[in-house]
Amino acid sequence: MKTASICAIGDEILIGQIVDTNSSHISRALGSIGVRVKQISSIGDDRATIMTHLDNLLRNNDIVMVTGGLGPTKDDITKEALATLSGAKGYYRSEAQMEVIESILSRRGIAMLDTNRAQADVPDTARVIVNKLGTAPIMEFFFDEGGKYGHPRLLYSMPGVPYETINALPDVMEAIKSHFEMDGILHRTICTFGLAESVLAKTIEAWETALPEYLHLAYLPNALYGVRLRLSLYGAGEPGRKEAMDNAISELYTLLGNYIYGEGEDTLQTVIPRLLQAPPAAAYQETISVAESCTGGLVSNLITGVAGSSEYYKGSVTSYANEVKMNLLNVPEEILEKYGAVSKECAEAMARGVATLLDTDWSVATTGIAGPGGGSEAKPVGTCWIAAAHRNPFTGTTEVVSRMVKSASASREVNMQRFASNALNLLRLMMQQKLL
Amino acid sequence: MKTASICAIGDEILIGQIVDTNSSHISRALGSIGVRVKQISSIGDDRATIMTHLDNLLRNNDIVMVTGGLGPTKDDITKEALATLSGAKGYYRSEAQMEVIESILSRRGIAMLDTNRAQADVPDTARVIVNKLGTAPIMEFFFDEGGKYGHPRLLYSMPGVPYETINALPDVMEAIKSHFEMDGILHRTICTFGLAESVLAKTIEAWETALPEYLHLAYLPNALYGVRLRLSLYGAGEPGRKEAMDNAISELYTLLGNYIYGEGEDTLQTVIPRLLQAPPAAAYQETISVAESCTGGLVSNLITGVAGSSEYYKGSVTSYANEVKMNLLNVPEEILEKYGAVSKECAEAMARGVATLLDTDWSVATTGIAGPGGGSEAKPVGTCWIAAAHRNPFTGTTEVVSRMVKSASASREVNMQRFASNALNLLRLMMQQKLL
Repeated sequence: MKTASICAIGDEILIGQIVDTNSSHISRALGSIGVRVKQISSIGDDRATIMTHLDNLLRNNDIVMVTGGLGPTKDDITKEALATLSGAKGYYRSEAQMEVIESILSRRGIAMLDTNRAQADVPDTARVIVNKLGTAPIMEFFFDEGGKYGHPRLLYSMPGVPYETINALPDVMEAIKSHFEMDGILHRTICTFGLAESVLAKTIEAWETALPEYLHLAYLPNALYGVRLRLSLYGAGEPGRKEAMDNAISELYTLLGNYIYGEGEDTLQTVIPRLLQAPPAAAYQETISVAESCTGGLVSNLITGVAGSSEYYKGSVTSYANEVKMNLLNVPEEILEKYGAVSKECAEAMARGVATLLDTDWSVATTGIAGPGGGSEAKPVGTCWIAAAHRNPFTGTTEVVSRMVKSASASREVNMQRFASNALNLLRLMMQQKLL
Repeated sequence: MKTASICAIGDEILIGQIVDTNSSHISRALGSIGVRVKQISSIGDDRATIMTHLDNLLRNNDIVMVTGGLGPTKDDITKEALATLSGAKGYYRSEAQMEVIESILSRRGIAMLDTNRAQADVPDTARVIVNKLGTAPIMEFFFDEGGKYGHPRLLYSMPGVPYETINALPDVMEAIKSHFEMDGILHRTICTFGLAESVLAKTIEAWETALPEYLHLAYLPNALYGVRLRLSLYGAGEPGRKEAMDNAISELYTLLGNYIYGEGEDTLQTVIPRLLQAPPAAAYQETISVAESCTGGLVSNLITGVAGSSEYYKGSVTSYANEVKMNLLNVPEEILEKYGAVSKECAEAMARGVATLLDTDWSVATTGIAGPGGGSEAKPVGTCWIAAAHRNPFTGTTEVVSRMVKSASASREVNMQRFASNALNLLRLMMQQKLL
């Protein structure tokens, strides 16, 4: 299996000013063609450090991906370091990249400067892959097995701007495949919700222990989307391995049942719309509304984060004050007096109330204590009641389900995230008719 | 100046499933106590790699910060590697961490398993700094100058969960200062909103060029809180330097005026409540409400993210569907027909409507196109109208201000963040009577 390391160059990463997201995109692209990433690193804009670090990476990896350090300003010295490292005798101008630079500058109404022109100049040891969205070309350096590293090595220098890198990755992956024969690697991710990481691990312990050595499992927990289980298959080309992976995943579905809500990049908010009745299968598009107290708009924000959500999402009421719960959501004053705002009764009344107010088929509600202040012995910080409601289209009656959620985080933000994701999960389970 | 390297451990980072944001928080914390970060790296959950890599980092840095690789599941082998690396002879149980584990599990209603208990066990070479928000303790390993590295070395192993790491960083920085003498360094951060980074840089170019060499400026841009300017003073003990820093900041206030909304960790949503009339200075507590369309709950979520916001925040309406704008927020149908939902008129009507509906003194509204789909030539993706309203307590009349916001991101999330922060900024400026 070919190995790679990724290196992001820039002082702004080291001082914590920006987060390196490029490496993550590059990793996924490499994984998809069967290259194993051994290391990701970030170093500063220092010539000696760049030289030493890249030289070291080339000794230990088949492929080195460099990102950043290529802008028009003077702190960008990567290109010069790469020229030295690859033994270049001079530079040549990439006419193809020059055309892109001219077109970008003219569209922005900026006059061409020497620093702009210089961006199209590359060491004579480099092959250019045109950066169609930016001014800095992608450079490929190939060291053959007769060269200084004794084995074939590939180095790609990519721009620091994320969308330029994302756009160029397919071309770069094709280039890698033209140099190296690839082994197969496959990943599948199963999205679960409702079991804490440790409980989940216990539940699937025997299954995990029985996995063959070429199948590797990783737990990826998150307050917003639960625990994702990622199964990686190495040597996917070997006979029987893909089938073994499929079998392992079938067993996982049997073991975990309704705790599984999706695969891959699924989230509760992307899965829910697929469960709604909608044309052409159904006569009309079902709709959703939200009533929030302690989550303060987060449930609504998660739902509307999905492009196209305006098709099925009508809106929400954040009823932070009790008077809003009563006046807008029609929560009876007696409920607030007898049970309090953080109660099963209030959550259910809120879910019914918002569905009526916004005239939707489904609704979900939250009412709890996110902390750090507030709470009582009976209802400590981290307690939340959630409810989901469904209007039966045939009988016209509304069914409501509710649950108590306990979150133990000292972080207000994390508590809000747990309450919100649990509310969405309750709605998901109700839609799958797993609760009624 | 002491140097550090940060190492994030986890296969999930290497395959690009999650982005390492912890290192960025750790970098900033180290910078704040005067430690220079030389390298950030991510490696996989592989025992041999962890050993070799950390050993190498300890040879070349005063301080090594490790994050991740400490969860309760068996893919986490960092602790064992650290035990070997530090020459531990056995493990001991941290009772203080055990108490936190018990309390977290009992609050979540989860039974204690052996894997949970094992998290409190640490190598006998480690000192524990309690992780108050999670189950994995922070471990400190100190190698004295008589030890294997020939110089004093510090290694901290921190959790992979970002909020646990963020919460523990102040304790860890104190621990570092107890081992190493630090050069004097002082930071002050000025929070600005309303000028793009490049425009801001141009505006303060002469001021920045005139800064003495011991004052260093960094730009920290963010779609949610604008651009923070961090001024770092090196050699803070030298005579006259603190005064020079104060003078430089006074000049910055003169240059930037109302573009400055706060200092340090201030955000628009933490500044706004301080601008409200409230007891004991005023006779009553002013209140806020929110009406959102394209931001889908984000403005409300930002406001309620502030602990204690229930004192002044009544709630919000997310009117994703036009019928909700009309029925609940009282936006006249003629406005939607004549100007469309994304218009000055609609934003102003929404701000008025929600203030009336929820009976609040102040309100803010958003209506726009977050993309990636939708939009037209006249109103492309990234266009948003925002409005803020204030009910004059003496005359009873409501004043409304509005602005158009343009965001050019291809990311729906970033566009929503820019719209939301601009709306909060408009409310802030109106409260400061800088707009009327």
